[in-house]
Amino acid sequence: MSKEITSRSEDYSQWYNDIVLKAGLADYSAVKGCMVIKPHGYALWENMRDVLDRMFKETGHQNAYFPLFIPKSFLSKEAAHVEGFAKECAVVTHYRLKNDPNGGGVVVDPDAKLEEELIVRPTSETIIWNTYKDWIQSYRDLPLLINQWANVVRWEMRTRLFLRTTEFLWQEGHTAHATREEAIEETKKMLEVYATFAEQYMAVPVVRGVKTANERFAGAEDTYCIEALMQDGKALQAGTSHFLGQNFAKAFDVTFRDKENKLDYVWATSWGVSTRLVGALVMAHSDDQGLVLPPRIAPLQVVIVPIMNKDPEAQARINIYANSLVSELRSKGIRVKFDDDDTARPGWKFAEYEMKGVPVRIALGARDMENNVAEVARRDTKEKASVSLDGLSAHIAALLDDIQANMYAKALQFRNDNTRKVDTWDDFVKVLDEQAGFVAAHWDGTPETEEKIKELTKATIRCIPLNYEQEPGTCILTGKPSTQRVLFARAY
Amino acid sequence: MSKEITSRSEDYSQWYNDIVLKAGLADYSAVKGCMVIKPHGYALWENMRDVLDRMFKETGHQNAYFPLFIPKSFLSKEAAHVEGFAKECAVVTHYRLKNDPNGGGVVVDPDAKLEEELIVRPTSETIIWNTYKDWIQSYRDLPLLINQWANVVRWEMRTRLFLRTTEFLWQEGHTAHATREEAIEETKKMLEVYATFAEQYMAVPVVRGVKTANERFAGAEDTYCIEALMQDGKALQAGTSHFLGQNFAKAFDVTFRDKENKLDYVWATSWGVSTRLVGALVMAHSDDQGLVLPPRIAPLQVVIVPIMNKDPEAQARINIYANSLVSELRSKGIRVKFDDDDTARPGWKFAEYEMKGVPVRIALGARDMENNVAEVARRDTKEKASVSLDGLSAHIAALLDDIQANMYAKALQFRNDNTRKVDTWDDFVKVLDEQAGFVAAHWDGTPETEEKIKELTKATIRCIPLNYEQEPGTCILTGKPSTQRVLFARAY
Repeated sequence: MSKEITSRSEDYSQWYNDIVLKAGLADYSAVKGCMVIKPHGYALWENMRDVLDRMFKETGHQNAYFPLFIPKSFLSKEAAHVEGFAKECAVVTHYRLKNDPNGGGVVVDPDAKLEEELIVRPTSETIIWNTYKDWIQSYRDLPLLINQWANVVRWEMRTRLFLRTTEFLWQEGHTAHATREEAIEETKKMLEVYATFAEQYMAVPVVRGVKTANERFAGAEDTYCIEALMQDGKALQAGTSHFLGQNFAKAFDVTFRDKENKLDYVWATSWGVSTRLVGALVMAHSDDQGLVLPPRIAPLQVVIVPIMNKDPEAQARINIYANSLVSELRSKGIRVKFDDDDTARPGWKFAEYEMKGVPVRIALGARDMENNVAEVARRDTKEKASVSLDGLSAHIAALLDDIQANMYAKALQFRNDNTRKVDTWDDFVKVLDEQAGFVAAHWDGTPETEEKIKELTKATIRCIPLNYEQEPGTCILTGKPSTQRVLFARAY
Repeated sequence: MSKEITSRSEDYSQWYNDIVLKAGLADYSAVKGCMVIKPHGYALWENMRDVLDRMFKETGHQNAYFPLFIPKSFLSKEAAHVEGFAKECAVVTHYRLKNDPNGGGVVVDPDAKLEEELIVRPTSETIIWNTYKDWIQSYRDLPLLINQWANVVRWEMRTRLFLRTTEFLWQEGHTAHATREEAIEETKKMLEVYATFAEQYMAVPVVRGVKTANERFAGAEDTYCIEALMQDGKALQAGTSHFLGQNFAKAFDVTFRDKENKLDYVWATSWGVSTRLVGALVMAHSDDQGLVLPPRIAPLQVVIVPIMNKDPEAQARINIYANSLVSELRSKGIRVKFDDDDTARPGWKFAEYEMKGVPVRIALGARDMENNVAEVARRDTKEKASVSLDGLSAHIAALLDDIQANMYAKALQFRNDNTRKVDTWDDFVKVLDEQAGFVAAHWDGTPETEEKIKELTKATIRCIPLNYEQEPGTCILTGKPSTQRVLFARAY
């Protein structure tokens, strides 16, 4: 099976598509730009969602659900917002079909035209802030900390499974606060939740930063982001958290009375991550044999494959032991499966679970059993070891932790190796072309220079990292003075 | 707060709306027919979803996700299906807005008209079976047991919060099988999952039955259903499970090779429940003081309200005890909150938690503490008791079980009291008008008679119950022979 995958060195882009399709993560659909998320991909997304959802609740947020449709006029209320989203939206204009009087199946019923068109939400700030108007009157109603898990639609001309699809699944947090300071604090807090999730669960190290004005969310005063580096040296934005100022409160007239009974507009944040994270996960860790999944979010953490034996007694011993091992591992909270399907050969199963990224595989053969050992293979390094059955479940639990840590360490090493300080234009172009990765360089702070660099090199400023020190320098393009390096890369 | 609710006897319909709004379950939205599900309502739906999701997985199903949009031509492929759904769908005709050249905000860009219109899914049989065509070739690919959690849209002219909204949340299972028998078995199995969920978690007794031809899902060979009785004597369909025969396999050309290498069409089922269940839950149990929730799915099961004391030492003792009780209850898996907000009075909190349906309230006062007791109030019967602090958490755990059982028993008693065998037309009309409830009566089995009875009385055949015995009789309307009673009611 693995030989059907294109190798990374041959064609990284094709390798990615091969993995997504062959590991059963997603499939193309009959609707242009939309994908079908297959069971293995959806199980992965469910695990990611469950962890994030717990983190949101632990930081005081509640879930709610707002309408799929947004009246067209709502989009126009925030000037920057409509500029950003009007160009790529699905528009509902009618509410009924009818039989074609000329016998051509069903057609849109012209009598069922909507008075005002409805937009399928590309993001929900407008409909939510229109609702918050009714929910917020006093400082007692604040902060309002709400999250929504939903599907959204942005009409994309060029799509890629998980990374850029017309419809995608995501969560969008929308909070309302009494003060600017509190809203900024919330924006940063949720960025840190995302960063923690990416690093501790996805095993993907991220750079925390703030976007330049060019790259800001349409309607935000500041967009914070986490940026990850993929194995081909391209960057991927893995999550954003926006400080929206009072823009949406003003657009939808959401005011509150403070403790002194003074009327003021409410301060807002919004933040989101999407099924794009599944794409990031694939690109960060997988190899030429298939998916490599970090144990903490892998749908299946351990698979036990019996080496079938013709001697029924030997086979029975394998089965009895395997079932007891399953119980033991489950009691430790480990997601495990005993694959005793006797219509498939062990070698086929090995390749299949390798493709699907199961972190640990245990093979149980009669001879091994006699020697009181099992063969344990880890997916990340592909190392195999003969491990004593005594204390095997504790060994496996520790191994899963080790794989999680190792995957993060490897990705961090890769990112460190591929983040380069550059001080001249020639070096900048050369590094981008020959080595890719993140480039830390000085920039004069103007949108014009940023735009020019993008035109010349296709590299964008991924972010102004939050942890970079102030450091005087000169802009790589214009030579003008700069106070801090920013992070450039070509990006997904 | 409770005095703002209309009583059931005064206006049942208004009572329902009052509860949904004032208990914070949902709100109207700016989009006609669409609702906002508020945090308390969404938390309830999440609990219902989590239980159902576990039950689906335990019966071998996996989750996946299919596109929101369905190409218009797909709807036409199954003749009955398009008849059922074309009349009430949201149609996407364009994919872009642009600035109005006349300065009127944004308008639909006429240059961005879709070649083929897209329908926002009213249900997903068509897009899913079009996908299954690629996934199924051999009997080895069967059964295919997939479920999807999603939003769907059916354009409704008259809507009611939760019960009938243009957009709603639901799950839809779509399974594919090698034989008719296996598909029918699946259809019945999932009906039983729904019935178990309704009875054991929602504490709502249901009648398991099969729909008449008139009431079948558009495209099904048989529709099984569970029917519940609301407090006003009207019936509510709480879930359906459809045996689709080979209709969709034929419409989308989904065939498989069996073990003998013979080609045949695949057999299908689909089954779903929706946020409508939240409406059923409200109508089945709540009272004139607000929501009454069964403990097993209540977002919050126990609330501890301190009776604030001016003596800081007494207050400290209350707080210390309350926090230890919270830990003890949590360790038993009980969802509990200690509401120590000192800006609200105990009486206000009592009314608030009563309105929100929290099953158990524990009030802790200084004098009670001295006497080593707490006041424990149960929401279902509104009984209060002074309970010893010794073993209080065990008492609460048992009380929650008792409330769950009592709510079911009460609802069952109500349904039994309101299910009446009727043998003449006069009695039929009289019972419907004067007593409402379920009416078990003989029917001649024809769609014409069913239609006529509906016209004359607004009562429909809710189902042909699965557990009713064969029993010769004569149709209440036509006097023609009948072999089994069916269940009539006016319904939501």
